[in-house]
Amino acid sequence: MDRVLLAHGGGGSLTKQLIRGMVVSRFGNPALAPLSDSALLELPPGKTAFTTDSYVVKPLRFRGGDIGRLAVSGTVNDLAMAGAKPLYISLALILEEGLPLDDLAAILDSAKATAGEAGVTVVCGDTKAVERGAADGLFINTSGIGVIPEGVSVAMERAAPGDAVLINGPIGDHGVAILSAREGLSFETPVSSDVAPLNGLVVAILAAGGEAIHALRDPTRGGLGMVACEVAEACCHDIELDEAEIPVRPEVRGACDLLGLDPLYVANEGKLVVVCAEGVASAVLTAMRAHPLGRSAAPIGRVLEGAKGRVTLRTAIGGRRVVDPPYGEQLPRIC
Amino acid sequence: MDRVLLAHGGGGSLTKQLIRGMVVSRFGNPALAPLSDSALLELPPGKTAFTTDSYVVKPLRFRGGDIGRLAVSGTVNDLAMAGAKPLYISLALILEEGLPLDDLAAILDSAKATAGEAGVTVVCGDTKAVERGAADGLFINTSGIGVIPEGVSVAMERAAPGDAVLINGPIGDHGVAILSAREGLSFETPVSSDVAPLNGLVVAILAAGGEAIHALRDPTRGGLGMVACEVAEACCHDIELDEAEIPVRPEVRGACDLLGLDPLYVANEGKLVVVCAEGVASAVLTAMRAHPLGRSAAPIGRVLEGAKGRVTLRTAIGGRRVVDPPYGEQLPRIC
Repeated sequence: MDRVLLAHGGGGSLTKQLIRGMVVSRFGNPALAPLSDSALLELPPGKTAFTTDSYVVKPLRFRGGDIGRLAVSGTVNDLAMAGAKPLYISLALILEEGLPLDDLAAILDSAKATAGEAGVTVVCGDTKAVERGAADGLFINTSGIGVIPEGVSVAMERAAPGDAVLINGPIGDHGVAILSAREGLSFETPVSSDVAPLNGLVVAILAAGGEAIHALRDPTRGGLGMVACEVAEACCHDIELDEAEIPVRPEVRGACDLLGLDPLYVANEGKLVVVCAEGVASAVLTAMRAHPLGRSAAPIGRVLEGAKGRVTLRTAIGGRRVVDPPYGEQLPRIC
Repeated sequence: MDRVLLAHGGGGSLTKQLIRGMVVSRFGNPALAPLSDSALLELPPGKTAFTTDSYVVKPLRFRGGDIGRLAVSGTVNDLAMAGAKPLYISLALILEEGLPLDDLAAILDSAKATAGEAGVTVVCGDTKAVERGAADGLFINTSGIGVIPEGVSVAMERAAPGDAVLINGPIGDHGVAILSAREGLSFETPVSSDVAPLNGLVVAILAAGGEAIHALRDPTRGGLGMVACEVAEACCHDIELDEAEIPVRPEVRGACDLLGLDPLYVANEGKLVVVCAEGVASAVLTAMRAHPLGRSAAPIGRVLEGAKGRVTLRTAIGGRRVVDPPYGEQLPRIC
C-alpha cells in the first residue's frame, strides 16, 4: 500500500493510521495529540486574527517550494499582514485516490519545516479522500490564529497621503516558477519561487517603524498591481508607483516578455508591501535589508493626496499609466 | 455568465465580484467586511477551541440538506463537542469551472441559514477555482473558533466506570440519505439527513448535567461504532452498548439490510453521544427530550470497570459481540 486509497478518508482505522503515521508523527504536540474534535488553546491577551486559505497549486512541487510550504507560508503571511503574531494553524487535506504516499510524506515534511521556520504549531487537522479524477492530487486548506500585540494597528485604511510604499524584494518569482514547472519551460537562469513565511520580517519592520507602519499586504494572486489597487481603494487616496524602482529579476522580466505577462500582476508568495510614514521609511528599509527575506528591499512609490483611490505607474521611460485591478487571473492555480 | 469560470478564482476583479455578490451579500458583518487578509476578533475570556473540516460530500444536495448546511453544522458541532460556544467560522470554497452559479447561490443560502440557526458569524473566507475535471463541483472547508465557558471540561478521557452513555436520536439517517441520493434508490419512506447544528442542544445538556457531563462526541464518519471505540480507547475503560436501546428508524434499518451496511457504522451529522455520571443521566435525558433535536434521546449503554478500552454490544437477541473500529469507510464522500 503505497498510494492513497478512498478508505484513507473514511474516518475508520485506516484514516487513523494515516493520521498517526503521516501527520501526528511529524506535527505531534500537546494540542494536536488528543485527536479530538477541537484543539484547546490558551491565547495570550490581545485582538485575535483569524484567516483561511485553500491551496490548489499545480504542480504540487515546483522550484523553490511545494504545496506544503505554500500552505503554511500563505496562512502565516495572512496573519502577519494583520500585524499579528501567528501562533496556531490547522491543516486539512483533500487527497485524490492514487496519490503516492511518498509524495504526501515529502509535502508534509516541507510543511513541517516551514511551520518550524515560522514558529507556528499545527493544532488541528482533517483528512478526506476522493475518488480518482474528483480532485487533482492534493488540495490543502490551512486556517490560522494569531494575536495582535498591544499597540500594533495595521490596516489598509490607515495609508495616508505622503506615506512611502516599500517592497522587500523582486516581484513575480512565484508565478514564473510555477509557470515554468507547469509548461516545462526552461530558462537559462531558472527562477525559484519566493515562497516563505514573512512573520519574522514583519517583526523587524514593526520594531523599526512602530505605529508609523500603516499597512502591510502580501501581493499574492493578482500581484503587486492588485494589492496597490486594494490599498488605494480602501484608504481612498491615490497611489503612485515608480516602475524603475520596482525590483524584477532579469530572468523574470525575460520570461514575462516571452509569455506576455505583466510582472506587476504576477503572484508572489514571499513578498510584502509596506505603507509607512515617510519619516520612518529609511529606518524601515534598513531593518528590512538586514533580514534575509528583505535584502533587496526598495522604496517603490508613495500615497498621494488624490482621493480617487486610483493607482498610477510612472513608467521607466517617463510616462504615466493607470494600473487597473486585473480582471481574472493570468495564471490559474498559482496558489 | 451563469457558471464558474477559472478567472473567478484568480484573485482579480472577477474574484472580488463573486465574493461581493455571493459571499459578502449574504454573510456581511463588520469582521468580514474589510475583506483583508485576516479577520480581527475580540474573543471573550476562556479557553479557545479551534477546529477545521473539509467537506467533499457527493451529491452536493441531498434530502434534508446540502454541502452548505453540512459545512457549517459539522464545524459548529466539532466546537460544541469540546464544550465550546461556537463563535466564528471561516468559509473556503474550491470551485470547479462550470459549476452553475445558481447552485452555488443556493448552497451559500443554506450555509447562511445554518449559521444563523447556530448563532455563528462567518468572518473570513477564500475562493479558489480549478479547471473542469480537477475537482468535483464544490469542496468547502470551514474552520471554527469557540470559547469554552468557565467550569466546562468535557473530554473523552473523563469517561469513567459507571457513566451512562446517551444519544439524542436515531442513528444512520445521514449516511442512508446520501446513499439514496447518490444511487437513485427510493424507499417507501424516504430518509432525510439529520444534518443540524447541535450547539443549542449542548447548552441544554451542560445546563442539566454540569460538571457531571464527562464527554461529548458527534458520531459522523465511522458512526456510533467508531465514536464508542474512540471514547473507550481514550478513557481506558470498556463500554457496553445495548443494541435494543439504540434508536434506528425502520426505514434506515431496512435500507441498511438491503445494502449490507451496519447502522452502527453509518454516518450521522445531527447526532451526539453524551457520556455522563449515572446520577445526572435522567435529568440530562429530560433536557435533551425537551429540545427539538433531542426528542428521541435514549440511554444506550454504559462505561464499565474493564480497562481494556474495548466496546461490546449486547445484541437484541441476548448475545454479545465486540465492536471493532471500522477499517475504512462504508460510504466514500459521506461528508
